Amino acid sequence: MAPKLAAEFLGTLWLVLGGCGSAVLAAAFPDVGIGLLGVSFAFGLTVLTMAFAIGHVSGCHLNPAVTLGLVAGGRFSAGEAVPYIIVQVLGAIAGAGILYVIASGKAGFEVGGFAANGFGDHSIGKYSMNAALVTEFVMTFFFLIIILGATHSKAPAGFAPIAIGLGLTLIHLISIPVTQTSVNPARSTGPALVVGGWALQQLWLFWVAPIAGAVVAGIVSRSFWPDDKA
Amino acid sequence: MAPKLAAEFLGTLWLVLGGCGSAVLAAAFPDVGIGLLGVSFAFGLTVLTMAFAIGHVSGCHLNPAVTLGLVAGGRFSAGEAVPYIIVQVLGAIAGAGILYVIASGKAGFEVGGFAANGFGDHSIGKYSMNAALVTEFVMTFFFLIIILGATHSKAPAGFAPIAIGLGLTLIHLISIPVTQTSVNPARSTGPALVVGGWALQQLWLFWVAPIAGAVVAGIVSRSFWPDDKA
Amino acid sequence: MAPKLAAEFLGTLWLVLGGCGSAVLAAAFPDVGIGLLGVSFAFGLTVLTMAFAIGHVSGCHLNPAVTLGLVAGGRFSAGEAVPYIIVQVLGAIAGAGILYVIASGKAGFEVGGFAANGFGDHSIGKYSMNAALVTEFVMTFFFLIIILGATHSKAPAGFAPIAIGLGLTLIHLISIPVTQTSVNPARSTGPALVVGGWALQQLWLFWVAPIAGAVVAGIVSRSFWPDDKA
Amino acid sequence: MAPKLAAEFLGTLWLVLGGCGSAVLAAAFPDVGIGLLGVSFAFGLTVLTMAFAIGHVSGCHLNPAVTLGLVAGGRFSAGEAVPYIIVQVLGAIAGAGILYVIASGKAGFEVGGFAANGFGDHSIGKYSMNAALVTEFVMTFFFLIIILGATHSKAPAGFAPIAIGLGLTLIHLISIPVTQTSVNPARSTGPALVVGGWALQQLWLFWVAPIAGAVVAGIVSRSFWPDDKA
Repeated sequence: MAPKLAAEFLGTLWLVLGGCGSAVLAAAFPDVGIGLLGVSFAFGLTVLTMAFAIGHVSGCHLNPAVTLGLVAGGRFSAGEAVPYIIVQVLGAIAGAGILYVIASGKAGFEVGGFAANGFGDHSIGKYSMNAALVTEFVMTFFFLIIILGATHSKAPAGFAPIAIGLGLTLIHLISIPVTQTSVNPARSTGPALVVGGWALQQLWLFWVAPIAGAVVAGIVSRSFWPDDKA
Repeated sequence: MAPKLAAEFLGTLWLVLGGCGSAVLAAAFPDVGIGLLGVSFAFGLTVLTMAFAIGHVSGCHLNPAVTLGLVAGGRFSAGEAVPYIIVQVLGAIAGAGILYVIASGKAGFEVGGFAANGFGDHSIGKYSMNAALVTEFVMTFFFLIIILGATHSKAPAGFAPIAIGLGLTLIHLISIPVTQTSVNPARSTGPALVVGGWALQQLWLFWVAPIAGAVVAGIVSRSFWPDDKA
Repeated sequence: MAPKLAAEFLGTLWLVLGGCGSAVLAAAFPDVGIGLLGVSFAFGLTVLTMAFAIGHVSGCHLNPAVTLGLVAGGRFSAGEAVPYIIVQVLGAIAGAGILYVIASGKAGFEVGGFAANGFGDHSIGKYSMNAALVTEFVMTFFFLIIILGATHSKAPAGFAPIAIGLGLTLIHLISIPVTQTSVNPARSTGPALVVGGWALQQLWLFWVAPIAGAVVAGIVSRSFWPDDKA
Repeated sequence: MAPKLAAEFLGTLWLVLGGCGSAVLAAAFPDVGIGLLGVSFAFGLTVLTMAFAIGHVSGCHLNPAVTLGLVAGGRFSAGEAVPYIIVQVLGAIAGAGILYVIASGKAGFEVGGFAANGFGDHSIGKYSMNAALVTEFVMTFFFLIIILGATHSKAPAGFAPIAIGLGLTLIHLISIPVTQTSVNPARSTGPALVVGGWALQQLWLFWVAPIAGAVVAGIVSRSFWPDDKA
C-alpha cells in the first residue's frame, strides 16, 4: 500500500504544481504568454505523464472524484478509497505550497486568484453558481466516461494515458472561463487553502459536483461495459 | 443495439458540447482566449477521447457523414445506418442544449453565432457558398480517407483514434474561417436549432456536402484497400 | 504500383492543401488566428494522418527529398523514385489549385505570398539566402534522421507516424520565419506555380537544399543503423 | 560505443537547435509568433522525435542530469556516464553554433538573450535565485520520475518517448518565466557560450540544481520500482 500512496501523493502534487503553476506563472506573461490554451495542455500533460509513470503503481487517480467514480463503476475497491483521497489532498496542498514558494520569488508578488476555482464573482468569466454546478457535473461525468472506457479491457492497451490526459486538456479548453475548471476536489483544495476567504467558502461546490458527476458516470458505465474489472 | 446507440448519443453530445462549447465559451476570452487553434484541438479531442472510450462499443462514428461513408466503403451495414444517424442528431441537439444552459448563466449573454455553421455573410471569414461547398466536400472526403485508412487491418492497431481525432483538429485548423467547419451534419444541426433563422436556412449545405464527400471517399477507398472488413 | 502512386498523389495534395491552407486561410485571422503555431501543427498533422492512413499502401513519403533520402539510406528502391516524385509534384499542384479555388471565394481576395517558400526579401523574417540554405539543409537532414530512425526495425512498432508528423511540426516551429519552411520540394512547387515571379525564381533552393540534406542523412544513417531494410 | 556517442551528439544538437531555435527565431515574431506555448512544444518535440529515432541506439538521454539520474536509479552504468556527458555538451555547443549562423543571417541581428538560462535580472520574469533553485530542482526531479516510470518494464511498451517528450513540454509551460527553463546542463551551456558574461556567471546553477533534482529522483525511484533494469 505504501508505494501506491506515495505515488498518488507525488502525482497529485505534480498535477497542482504543473497545472496551477502554468496558470499562475505563464498564462498571462506579457506578449508571449501561454493563455488558456497553454494552461489546458499543462493540466492534461500532468495526467498524461503521471499515468505513464505511475499508472502501473497506483492506477494514477490523482483525484477523489476519479477514485469514487471507479468505485461506483466496480473498478476499484471501496476500502482503499479513503487513504487514496487523503494522500491526494495532501499532495495537492504540497503542490500549492511549492508553487507559492516559486511564485513569491518575484518582487511585487501578490497571491491573486492563484488558480483557485470559483463561481459568480470569482469565476473569471462571471458565470453563475448554477452554470458552475452544471459544468462541473457534466465535465466530470464525461471525464469518467473517458477513463472507464479507455481503461476497459476491450480498449487498445497502453493508450489510456493519452486519452485521459488529453481528455483533461479538452475539459479545460471548454470550461476554464466558467469555474477555472476543477473536476477534481483535491486540485481545488490546494489553491483554496493559499487564497482563503471566498475560495474556501466556494470549495464545497468543487467537492459536490465533481463527485456527483463521477459517481453517476460509474453507475451508467455498468450498462455500457458489463463484466469488466480493469 | 441499445449500448451502441447510447454510446453514439453520448459521444455526439460530447462532440457538440466540447467543440462548440470551447468556441462559445473560451475562443474569444479577453487576452488569454484559446482562439481558433484551441477550438481546433477541442473538436479533435472530443473524437480522440470518445474513440478510445466507446470505439469498442459502437465504432464511434458520431457523424452521419462518417456512418454513410463507411457504408459506401463496405465497412458498415446499411441497416444500422438509420438508427445511428437518428441518435447522432439527438445527441447533437442535447449537447447544444446543455451548452445553452451553461453559456446563458452569465449576465448579458446573447446567443450570437453559437458556433453554428454558415456561408456568405454567415461565414466568419465571409466566404461564398461555392467556397463552402468545395471546402466541406473536400474536407469530409479526406476525413473519411483518414478514417478508412487508419482503421484498415494493415494499419498499426490501436492508433486510429489518434489519427482520426487529430485529423479533425487539422480540418478545423484549415477551414474554420470558411464555414466554421462542419464535416458533420449532426454537429451542424444542434447549434442551428438554437440559433434558428439563417442557420436553419443554410443547414442543407452541411448535410449535402459532407455526405457527398464522405460517400465518394468510401467508393474511392475500395480501390485502395480491397478486401477489408474492419 | 497504381495504388501506391494514387496514395502519394492524394497524400501530397493533402499536405499542401492542409499545411498551406491553414497558413493562407487561418494564420492571420483577426484576433483569433492560429498563428505560426497553428500552421506548424497543421503541416505536421497532414503527415501524421496520412502516415496512418496510407503508410501501409505507399510508405507515405509525400516529398521528393524523403524519397531520395530513403534511397540513399538503402530503404527504398531507386527504380520507384522517379514515378513517386512525379505524382508528388502533381499532387502538390492539385492541392495548391484547390486551395486557390477556396481562398478566392471571398470578396477582395489577393494571392499575396500564398505560403510559397522564399528567402531574402521574400522570407517573412527577411533572412538571407545563406541562412535559408543552411536552414533547409539542416532541417531536412534531421527530418530524415527522424524518419530513418523511427521506421527502423528496432524502433517501437506503429509509432513512426507520430514521430514523423510531430517532427514536421517541430521543424515548422523553428523555421517558418526563415523560409516559410519547405524541407519538401513538391510542397514548394505547388504554391510557387500559383504565385509565379519571385517564387519560381527562388524555387531552385527548395529543391537543392532539402534533397542535399536528405541524401546526406541517408548516407550517415547507414553507420547508425546497419543491416536494416524497413 | 561510437554509434551511441554519435547519437547523443546529434540528439543534443537537435534539442538545442530546435528548442532554443524556436525561441530565438519564432517566439516573438510579430502578430503570429509562437509564444512560450510554441517554444514549450518545440523543446518537447525535439526529445519526442529523437527518442523514437535514436532511443534504440543510445537511450536518448541528451542531458547530463538525465544520465546521472539514471545512474542513481540503477538504470545506467556509471562507467559510460562521462563520455555521454562530454558528447552531450559538445552537441549542445554545435546546436547553438548552427543557430547562431542562421539567426545572424538577418539585417540588424543582435544576440540578445539567445534563450540562455538565467535568474534575477536575467530571468525573463525577474524571479530570484532561490525561486530558480527550487524550480530547477523540482522540475528535474519530476522529469526523472516521468522518465524512470515511463521506461519501467511494467509501463506500456513503446510509449515512453511520448510521455518524456510531452513531459518536457509541460515543464516548459510552467517554468520558462522563471529561468527560461533548463533542467538540462548541456542545453544551458550551449547558449551561455554564445552570450557570455552573465550567462556564464549564472551557469553553475543550471548544472547544480538539475543534477541534484535528478539524482534525488533516481534514489527515490528505487523504492517505487524495485528490481527493474530497463
